[in-house]
Amino acid sequence: MIIRDRPSGFRLFLMLRGSVLPRILPALTINIIIATLVTLSHGDLFELKITLTTIPFTLIGLPISIFLGFRNNAAYDRFWEARKLWGELVLKSRNLSRQCRSLIQDPRPAVASNGTGDIRIRMVYRTIAFAHALKNLLRNQDNGKEFQQWLTAQELTESGRFRNKPDFLMQCMGADLQRCLQEKRIDSCLAANIDNTLSALTSAAAACERIRNTPIPFSYTLLLHRTAYIYCFLLPFGLVDSIGFMTPFVVAVVAYTFFGLDALGDEIEEPFGTESNDLPLDAICRAIEIDLRESIHDTHIPPAMLPVNYCLT
Amino acid sequence: MIIRDRPSGFRLFLMLRGSVLPRILPALTINIIIATLVTLSHGDLFELKITLTTIPFTLIGLPISIFLGFRNNAAYDRFWEARKLWGELVLKSRNLSRQCRSLIQDPRPAVASNGTGDIRIRMVYRTIAFAHALKNLLRNQDNGKEFQQWLTAQELTESGRFRNKPDFLMQCMGADLQRCLQEKRIDSCLAANIDNTLSALTSAAAACERIRNTPIPFSYTLLLHRTAYIYCFLLPFGLVDSIGFMTPFVVAVVAYTFFGLDALGDEIEEPFGTESNDLPLDAICRAIEIDLRESIHDTHIPPAMLPVNYCLT
Amino acid sequence: MIIRDRPSGFRLFLMLRGSVLPRILPALTINIIIATLVTLSHGDLFELKITLTTIPFTLIGLPISIFLGFRNNAAYDRFWEARKLWGELVLKSRNLSRQCRSLIQDPRPAVASNGTGDIRIRMVYRTIAFAHALKNLLRNQDNGKEFQQWLTAQELTESGRFRNKPDFLMQCMGADLQRCLQEKRIDSCLAANIDNTLSALTSAAAACERIRNTPIPFSYTLLLHRTAYIYCFLLPFGLVDSIGFMTPFVVAVVAYTFFGLDALGDEIEEPFGTESNDLPLDAICRAIEIDLRESIHDTHIPPAMLPVNYCLT
Amino acid sequence: MIIRDRPSGFRLFLMLRGSVLPRILPALTINIIIATLVTLSHGDLFELKITLTTIPFTLIGLPISIFLGFRNNAAYDRFWEARKLWGELVLKSRNLSRQCRSLIQDPRPAVASNGTGDIRIRMVYRTIAFAHALKNLLRNQDNGKEFQQWLTAQELTESGRFRNKPDFLMQCMGADLQRCLQEKRIDSCLAANIDNTLSALTSAAAACERIRNTPIPFSYTLLLHRTAYIYCFLLPFGLVDSIGFMTPFVVAVVAYTFFGLDALGDEIEEPFGTESNDLPLDAICRAIEIDLRESIHDTHIPPAMLPVNYCLT
Amino acid sequence: MIIRDRPSGFRLFLMLRGSVLPRILPALTINIIIATLVTLSHGDLFELKITLTTIPFTLIGLPISIFLGFRNNAAYDRFWEARKLWGELVLKSRNLSRQCRSLIQDPRPAVASNGTGDIRIRMVYRTIAFAHALKNLLRNQDNGKEFQQWLTAQELTESGRFRNKPDFLMQCMGADLQRCLQEKRIDSCLAANIDNTLSALTSAAAACERIRNTPIPFSYTLLLHRTAYIYCFLLPFGLVDSIGFMTPFVVAVVAYTFFGLDALGDEIEEPFGTESNDLPLDAICRAIEIDLRESIHDTHIPPAMLPVNYCLT
Repeated sequence: MIIRDRPSGFRLFLMLRGSVLPRILPALTINIIIATLVTLSHGDLFELKITLTTIPFTLIGLPISIFLGFRNNAAYDRFWEARKLWGELVLKSRNLSRQCRSLIQDPRPAVASNGTGDIRIRMVYRTIAFAHALKNLLRNQDNGKEFQQWLTAQELTESGRFRNKPDFLMQCMGADLQRCLQEKRIDSCLAANIDNTLSALTSAAAACERIRNTPIPFSYTLLLHRTAYIYCFLLPFGLVDSIGFMTPFVVAVVAYTFFGLDALGDEIEEPFGTESNDLPLDAICRAIEIDLRESIHDTHIPPAMLPVNYCLT
Repeated sequence: MIIRDRPSGFRLFLMLRGSVLPRILPALTINIIIATLVTLSHGDLFELKITLTTIPFTLIGLPISIFLGFRNNAAYDRFWEARKLWGELVLKSRNLSRQCRSLIQDPRPAVASNGTGDIRIRMVYRTIAFAHALKNLLRNQDNGKEFQQWLTAQELTESGRFRNKPDFLMQCMGADLQRCLQEKRIDSCLAANIDNTLSALTSAAAACERIRNTPIPFSYTLLLHRTAYIYCFLLPFGLVDSIGFMTPFVVAVVAYTFFGLDALGDEIEEPFGTESNDLPLDAICRAIEIDLRESIHDTHIPPAMLPVNYCLT
Repeated sequence: MIIRDRPSGFRLFLMLRGSVLPRILPALTINIIIATLVTLSHGDLFELKITLTTIPFTLIGLPISIFLGFRNNAAYDRFWEARKLWGELVLKSRNLSRQCRSLIQDPRPAVASNGTGDIRIRMVYRTIAFAHALKNLLRNQDNGKEFQQWLTAQELTESGRFRNKPDFLMQCMGADLQRCLQEKRIDSCLAANIDNTLSALTSAAAACERIRNTPIPFSYTLLLHRTAYIYCFLLPFGLVDSIGFMTPFVVAVVAYTFFGLDALGDEIEEPFGTESNDLPLDAICRAIEIDLRESIHDTHIPPAMLPVNYCLT
Repeated sequence: MIIRDRPSGFRLFLMLRGSVLPRILPALTINIIIATLVTLSHGDLFELKITLTTIPFTLIGLPISIFLGFRNNAAYDRFWEARKLWGELVLKSRNLSRQCRSLIQDPRPAVASNGTGDIRIRMVYRTIAFAHALKNLLRNQDNGKEFQQWLTAQELTESGRFRNKPDFLMQCMGADLQRCLQEKRIDSCLAANIDNTLSALTSAAAACERIRNTPIPFSYTLLLHRTAYIYCFLLPFGLVDSIGFMTPFVVAVVAYTFFGLDALGDEIEEPFGTESNDLPLDAICRAIEIDLRESIHDTHIPPAMLPVNYCLT
Repeated sequence: MIIRDRPSGFRLFLMLRGSVLPRILPALTINIIIATLVTLSHGDLFELKITLTTIPFTLIGLPISIFLGFRNNAAYDRFWEARKLWGELVLKSRNLSRQCRSLIQDPRPAVASNGTGDIRIRMVYRTIAFAHALKNLLRNQDNGKEFQQWLTAQELTESGRFRNKPDFLMQCMGADLQRCLQEKRIDSCLAANIDNTLSALTSAAAACERIRNTPIPFSYTLLLHRTAYIYCFLLPFGLVDSIGFMTPFVVAVVAYTFFGLDALGDEIEEPFGTESNDLPLDAICRAIEIDLRESIHDTHIPPAMLPVNYCLT
């Protein structure tokens, strides 16, 4: 995610970091070259005058624009829903920590120094691991040390058998909740609340997987790409008779808008990647880790992540 | 569902798999032929010059575009709501499995080898059957082995009497929950949580049936089809005087956009079919099966489904 | 609700069933007659040339289109919310039946042959009556045999005193739930779940009443009607100079679109009526009846309703 | 709220009741006068020809229209959310009544004749008072007899100390719930359900206050007013050269649309007032009163409110 | 937040308070100067006639407008969601107060004079502190006296160790709830309800942090700024030939609309700041304080905040 203030004045046009320009540069360049050639030949193609006026572009520009708007809405909704789900993870993690510490009875205070022998500490550590495991699942990354350090040796071994690590952690939490119930360390009404929080975490995780696994129907994307490309590549023929040598410049602006919106839609449609407009999952996982470890008075807590080169991953 | 990366360059225009083109080809071809005839006759129809200009198309193009946008929004919302509901099924299935195993008391661990004599294993198997039964109900398919293998002989017999198989399975789950309550194997507060999960599964199933049984009001679809067809078939008369021999080409692009958006709306409006842009219900059912069987340490678990020819069913 | 496949080819233009055409025919005919007269007189009105061009129509067409889109969105949202609410009724009815049969303790199995002396059967029958009563309330119809047959003689008498029959049935269900609690036939935690389902049914019913009693603000409808009518009736004056004898035809197409969208908005804005695009409440009530009676092993269950002349009421 | 059928034919253009016309008449009249003057002077202002064409209006008309659409959407969402909240109040009131009567144990039946000594009757009466108090709070009206008659003398005195009467009533209900718990007249699981209903009523009330206290950001309204006014007042200069003496008429239609949409947005943005398009809070409060008093077999119940001059307040 | 009535007549154009004008004045001035220079030179730039017509502006104006609409929608949704979350804080605070006072058993009435030794008073005071702490967190302000006065000396000391003060307060509330459970002063079913309210407060706080920390993807903002600026700065070249000396005026109106919408989007996108269109968090915190202190019969309650110079902070 790009974190920077809006630049003022001409710097607005010069900055590249955070711009979609590098991504669409090849298509844009080809388009401008075509526009220049068309301008130089006054719209003749192999001795044949292409009799396009701006009228077809007015007619077709409308549905393309509305359609681009529709797709950007859909893509942004996915992005924002994904962000909400991770916000949900943050808060349900905090809630789970609070509930474990205040609703499970234990003579000792719930502090990190009790170690993983204390069921409450184990629950908190597993919640941190849950966030990391989900992030790695969504990004197709391996579960490294940041995930493994929160598990006991036995859990680590057992986890290998499971395709879906976050689901495995939920199973462990369910088992520990059962243990608390059997040892009468929690009343069933309050256990129901903790069970609800576990369900909410599962729910957020499953919804993230849904967004990741179900793109916007491919035919939409294809139809939009095709019409936008045809529109921009034909545009010089329509403009050259009325605006002459300004054609390549105008085509560049139009193509920048259409290709840019199209590419941005592509990018935020899949919000869990590591591109510059994707969600900063690393930073969110770190925030969960800090909140939860603070709540159990843990030590050696790492600082919050800061943007590197305006970009938070 | 089509799973493929966006093709680059000219391949974008050549691919057919995932394109809506085959579907609209007949109408598109007729339209192009008409446009060609109109161009050759310079807009005369039986000696009569059709005096259309582009002005009517500008006037009528706007409401049609906005209306196409409205319908595509409505259709996409149905698609996405359907996807959410199946995501809900995935997660509530996981939750039900976790709850049954952690909240129902039993001295044995909850593993598949206990067989269907263990109420917890039975609940998990029935949840898998529930997903398959719902899929078959939505797709008007018969319930074959993939559904039957999860039921006991008695359930299988009894299920024949019910029109709505998923509902029948819910009844069985309710009965088993009652049994657990009577045998004091679960506290009523925790049983209430399991009951809520059962209600959530029923809810997702009923919402899927709602989407399947209630199309977007037919009059909308009819009005849109008619105006889009009239627009595209008259368009050559309006264009021929200003853009001459380019008319068929421009008409083809405009018609491709309008017919394509219209056909895509038709397709994703009914997201439970087996067309290429419909939801991959087979793959989701398989995912539920894998998750739930992993959670009870079952063996011979099948692998996740992969796209065939870029298409996941 | 119209249930039919999209017709192909020219039949698309010939079908009337499900089309909004009959509804807007009077206004459309007058509009076409005016357009013809204007064409014949070349835009002169009582010797005065009306100097309209297409420019005002371009200017005013845009806000009208956006406004039509806004109103259709609002109307469709009402339609779809209403459909969701009845979907909610279907599923909460199933849930209530499952909960009554599995959570209320009784030595006998919960089957219809126990008669209305069995509190669980009474609850299920009342739920069926609830759906019918709500349908009749929303459609301003009398509660006939389909409602009365599910009530005991005493309930039938008492119901006369209540303006709001569905609310009365909820009161009876509440009283029966109280009886179960007093007789210790249900644990209070589980009774709370049944109480939640009752609340959800009340909620769906009240939301239906809200939609029925609160139209889209009348001033919107009026403003939209007026501008759309002025637009279409003046259009011939703007077109006649540029497209000549095609004027009546183009005006017909434009008016068909605007009047059609306007009339469709009117129709689906009130989704509980008995017009062809309204919700099939009879069929939904029947579906609830079938599901609930199947669940208590009742006999003589009627079949599901089928569309008559493509129309499901 | 205006309750009337859509008028047909020419009466559509003559009705004033429910039309936004009276509200925008001053601005509209000035605009038409200016347009007439411009037409008479052929667009010259103090000997200077204002060289506007329709082009700037096409360019600026688009963002204004989209922006008007955005604001109308936002205003209608507020209106509809407010209506939903009052629908919520209706149903939660019914639920609260049902819950109090069926979940609080008492040997007597819960009928109005028990008087306010019966805690259940007191709860029902307070719910009626709650609706009236909220209505008066939202409309800045005094709490008259319709509010006071439902309170005991002691409550009436104590209520004077509170700025927020609905909140005060909630406090009283909370205190009574506590009393029931202490006297063991209700199980805590069921009391939790009543507490949830109280929270839902508080929630609906607070959301109404939110809508009332937070307008759409003022800068939006200001920007929209300014551009719409500039647009309409300059429009005659752009039209006069092409449509001549029709200018004032066209300007009137355009201004009616823009000013009308703008004024309607203003009106429904604040849905709790007493203007003709505002919500009929009096009628809703009356409906709550009828439902709740019927449920406790009260007598002398007033009839439902009917529209006066097509208007329900 | 600006609280003022819509001004009428010409005062509409003169007011600055609440207008976005001061914010966009620099860019607007430069744009008008350019337009004036272009008009004076008749569109020649260094002896070269810039051959722009209005056609490119029609083509590009559409996607920019739709895109501006999209961004304003997204920004307004953030603003309104933020307002809803603070509304949620208000009501959950009231609920928490009601629940603490009515569900926690104590022989004394729950009044402020008991002091912070009474767990219920402590809970209420902490809720007030929670609102202030959240406000300060969102606005990057220090926690001054308004926060500190509600905490006991011990809490104040301990709070220093926590990065996230609202979260710390939630921990304290959880600990107090645990104490009540251990001392059997609250039934576990009712404690579950209080726990739900605590979770809801955490949820609202975390959602506010989400909005604060996740801007609309920067590339969108950048793309929109760039195209809007290019559009407006080139516009004089396109208009000068057709409207002559009116060019600077028309450019000013168009730029005012585009820059204004753009700047408004920027402003309400971050609703927690202290600019004039941001949310009045100070006033909301004060309202929470008044409601809660009234509910525990506290004295010396401050009055509600009033707008200063039409602006509520």
